[in-house]
Amino acid sequence: MATEAADADVDAYEQFLQKVQRIHNVKHAGMILSWDQQVTMPEGGTPARSQQSSTLSAISHELLTDDEMGDLLDELEDRDLDDEQQAVVREVRREYERAARVPNELVEELTQTTSEALPKWEQAKEEDDFSVFAPTLEKLVELRREYAEHIDPDRDPYEVLFEEYEPYLGIDTAEETLERLRDELVPLVDDIRDSDVELATPFDGTYDAETQEDLARDTLDALGYDWDRGRLDTAAHPFSSGNQFDARVTTRFDESDPLGALTSTVHEFGHATYTQGLPDEEYGTPLGESRDLTVHESQSRLWENHVGRSRAFWERFLPELAERFPEAEDVSVDEMYEALNRVFEDNLIRVEADELTYHMHIVVRFEIEKQLIRGEIEVEDVPELWNDKYEEYLGIRPETDAEGCLQDIHWSHGNFGYFPTYSLGSVLAAQLYASAEEEIDDLEGKIREGDFEPLHEWLTENVHQHGARYTTDDLIQEATGESFTADYFLDYVEAKFADLYDLDR
Amino acid sequence: MATEAADADVDAYEQFLQKVQRIHNVKHAGMILSWDQQVTMPEGGTPARSQQSSTLSAISHELLTDDEMGDLLDELEDRDLDDEQQAVVREVRREYERAARVPNELVEELTQTTSEALPKWEQAKEEDDFSVFAPTLEKLVELRREYAEHIDPDRDPYEVLFEEYEPYLGIDTAEETLERLRDELVPLVDDIRDSDVELATPFDGTYDAETQEDLARDTLDALGYDWDRGRLDTAAHPFSSGNQFDARVTTRFDESDPLGALTSTVHEFGHATYTQGLPDEEYGTPLGESRDLTVHESQSRLWENHVGRSRAFWERFLPELAERFPEAEDVSVDEMYEALNRVFEDNLIRVEADELTYHMHIVVRFEIEKQLIRGEIEVEDVPELWNDKYEEYLGIRPETDAEGCLQDIHWSHGNFGYFPTYSLGSVLAAQLYASAEEEIDDLEGKIREGDFEPLHEWLTENVHQHGARYTTDDLIQEATGESFTADYFLDYVEAKFADLYDLDR
Repeated sequence: MATEAADADVDAYEQFLQKVQRIHNVKHAGMILSWDQQVTMPEGGTPARSQQSSTLSAISHELLTDDEMGDLLDELEDRDLDDEQQAVVREVRREYERAARVPNELVEELTQTTSEALPKWEQAKEEDDFSVFAPTLEKLVELRREYAEHIDPDRDPYEVLFEEYEPYLGIDTAEETLERLRDELVPLVDDIRDSDVELATPFDGTYDAETQEDLARDTLDALGYDWDRGRLDTAAHPFSSGNQFDARVTTRFDESDPLGALTSTVHEFGHATYTQGLPDEEYGTPLGESRDLTVHESQSRLWENHVGRSRAFWERFLPELAERFPEAEDVSVDEMYEALNRVFEDNLIRVEADELTYHMHIVVRFEIEKQLIRGEIEVEDVPELWNDKYEEYLGIRPETDAEGCLQDIHWSHGNFGYFPTYSLGSVLAAQLYASAEEEIDDLEGKIREGDFEPLHEWLTENVHQHGARYTTDDLIQEATGESFTADYFLDYVEAKFADLYDLDR
Repeated sequence: MATEAADADVDAYEQFLQKVQRIHNVKHAGMILSWDQQVTMPEGGTPARSQQSSTLSAISHELLTDDEMGDLLDELEDRDLDDEQQAVVREVRREYERAARVPNELVEELTQTTSEALPKWEQAKEEDDFSVFAPTLEKLVELRREYAEHIDPDRDPYEVLFEEYEPYLGIDTAEETLERLRDELVPLVDDIRDSDVELATPFDGTYDAETQEDLARDTLDALGYDWDRGRLDTAAHPFSSGNQFDARVTTRFDESDPLGALTSTVHEFGHATYTQGLPDEEYGTPLGESRDLTVHESQSRLWENHVGRSRAFWERFLPELAERFPEAEDVSVDEMYEALNRVFEDNLIRVEADELTYHMHIVVRFEIEKQLIRGEIEVEDVPELWNDKYEEYLGIRPETDAEGCLQDIHWSHGNFGYFPTYSLGSVLAAQLYASAEEEIDDLEGKIREGDFEPLHEWLTENVHQHGARYTTDDLIQEATGESFTADYFLDYVEAKFADLYDLDR
């Protein structure tokens, strides 16, 4: 009888797993459609593509929330499952419970409003006229508040939305971390502003896009990108997407600035190498999917900042750059290091920000979107509040809304609660890198030699191979022996920028 | 009460239509996945892609054959529908009835066997060893016979399979047409073999792929390809795919032969311009989908043979070719025309065949696959029979199976009944072109001037805009005033090749 019961367990779990795989396959198909739309689709293709994409979204939503899934989850509740199976059930149940509570009509209204919001935001930004976007933003805020209320009427709606992107670290951690970043980075940037040090800016020529692309490929080669499971293309907004068998990278080239594409390529490489490192045999289940946005961003930031902006990396890689751009032959490693780490204390635009001021851009949006969703401010208050906060945290005031609160696309996607994971990811990158440095003998020396294998191995063993098996906090605990903490990030930036700007702190 | 009944009709039809659109959207998403796999996907992506593709196939099959679809079709049976609605119901019902009769397990077994067959066929072809492929071919023949039997146990199984690709023209038409082609083309090719005329072969240099690609783009431009709804890429096996908003073309380049890529590009253009000409507003229903393979192939063959291999076209286009390849400056229009229309009477390979011998390749496979499916011969008889037929119809005997019965991929895909539509399409191309010539004032002169608009308009009006509204025979009747006939094709080739080879017939 015991065997029979176990068989029944296996059967129910097998049936559940097949359904989960089906959902993941539909989602991954949707990702391919989205990649194609951003990279290869001819412009005229939009009407059909929108229908194809929303059909796939609707199907995966229906598969996730149908009665069969509810019954299977109930059935598995008291079954004898091993750790991995329990992890799969935990992840699917979490998604099921969120999705099943939201009425289909609301999901459709959100999709509809979002698709109308994008052109409104584009027009508002182009015309520098917030009032063009304001009514849609108001509607989106309202719908998202409603959405959160369906999922859990008893909790802070912003918290509920935040968990869509980072389900386990908790909103308190996010709030404490971003406050701490604000409180410690604002004075650091002030000191940098007061410093007399002028970092090198050796790249003032024109750098043709084709050569930059060759250089981006060299960089991916050097870092160990698996081309058999990936490709590089250009896209208006760089991104990476895919699965462990096919994790693609996109970038873009600015002919006046060869460093932008380089750092962005290394950033996307970090995302892609995480995806490539997910276990093959678990494709289609949470064990073969990445943990959420904090961890994903930690991987891109680790490679971008701790490797790609390091002196050691450029000791190795500068000659390759000079081979592509002979005018860089006279640039020293120190100059390169300075150029990559300059703090743009007067920059208003997040995507152009440096490693320090970046977080102020996040803090501003985080504080404002929290208040918006919580109903503490009105949409019409946003531009003024935005500008005030920039003045307070960065000492600069945007002169237009286009370079102020209209600069980023995310709100027009109906995404609220997404932004803080950018900062959490950077913070986690520093924590993970500190552990890797501790455990890998002379990591800096290995990077200087172009040997990235030990770092790949460490990341694969401690992060990539686990997929979503552990919750975010357990994963961090397993990898670093500690809970999530901003200590390492703050120590790292303090030391790095005090040295660069000759600060006496 | 009448209004209420009409409303109920509308509701049932609306519900049905939404389901049909959903199925089409899933299928079109699957096409994107397949395009990506053949054009952009990194090699390592296969394991995940196979799962994604078969998930989408399974979902569209389930949506097509579920109880809801059966009930809706029943409900619409006695409703008061207009002509267009009736056409949609007719097409969906036909697909539903075929699909619903085949058990899921058989569909899965076919998918499974097909995916195993491809590497077996590749190996057999590479090692020139039919016995490597034979057991899988046997299995596929058996499964397809079973498949046909489920659909209709009372009819010839080959007929049932043929209707998968050409549902309306009827197997008798196919048999009569192919017999007639065989009986009339064999003596014509014999006469050509006996002729002393040697056609010009002016292209014996090396033609770099990049310039050939530029030329392919020039060609598509000249013909009126809508780049806003399409793109050109290279693929191992040229194909076109997509929908009216996004109809893509692929081609491939052989540096020793600039004409191959040219004719193949014009061929795929013919397919794509049909797809681009389908009505936008009917996307996602049979009214916005192409009629089946005969009609599709008629469009590619019309552009490839009647336009792309014509003297008139090259009077216009030769200077553009000479601009890309200066060594072609000395080639005359007559030489170009001869080079494009040479009959390769000793060629064994279908995809390298000319406009005449091409059909002998089709006839051989048609005759053999009919006997196979009908159980009149065994798989082991195929190689010998294949070679005998080549000797009989083309006067040449393959020395290996690799260039004999193993040359084409289609059987390894489990496709039987597909091949005859290639010939039917060529035949229909001539019939349609004759009508267009009759109705368009000085069509040849217009082509000579590079003015393809009248031909596009004629094809759009008579073929493209109708989607699958008419059955194949009705469409041909509407467009040409006649039933399907091989008369025009035979007149055309008789006149063309008698002239080229100076035959006294």
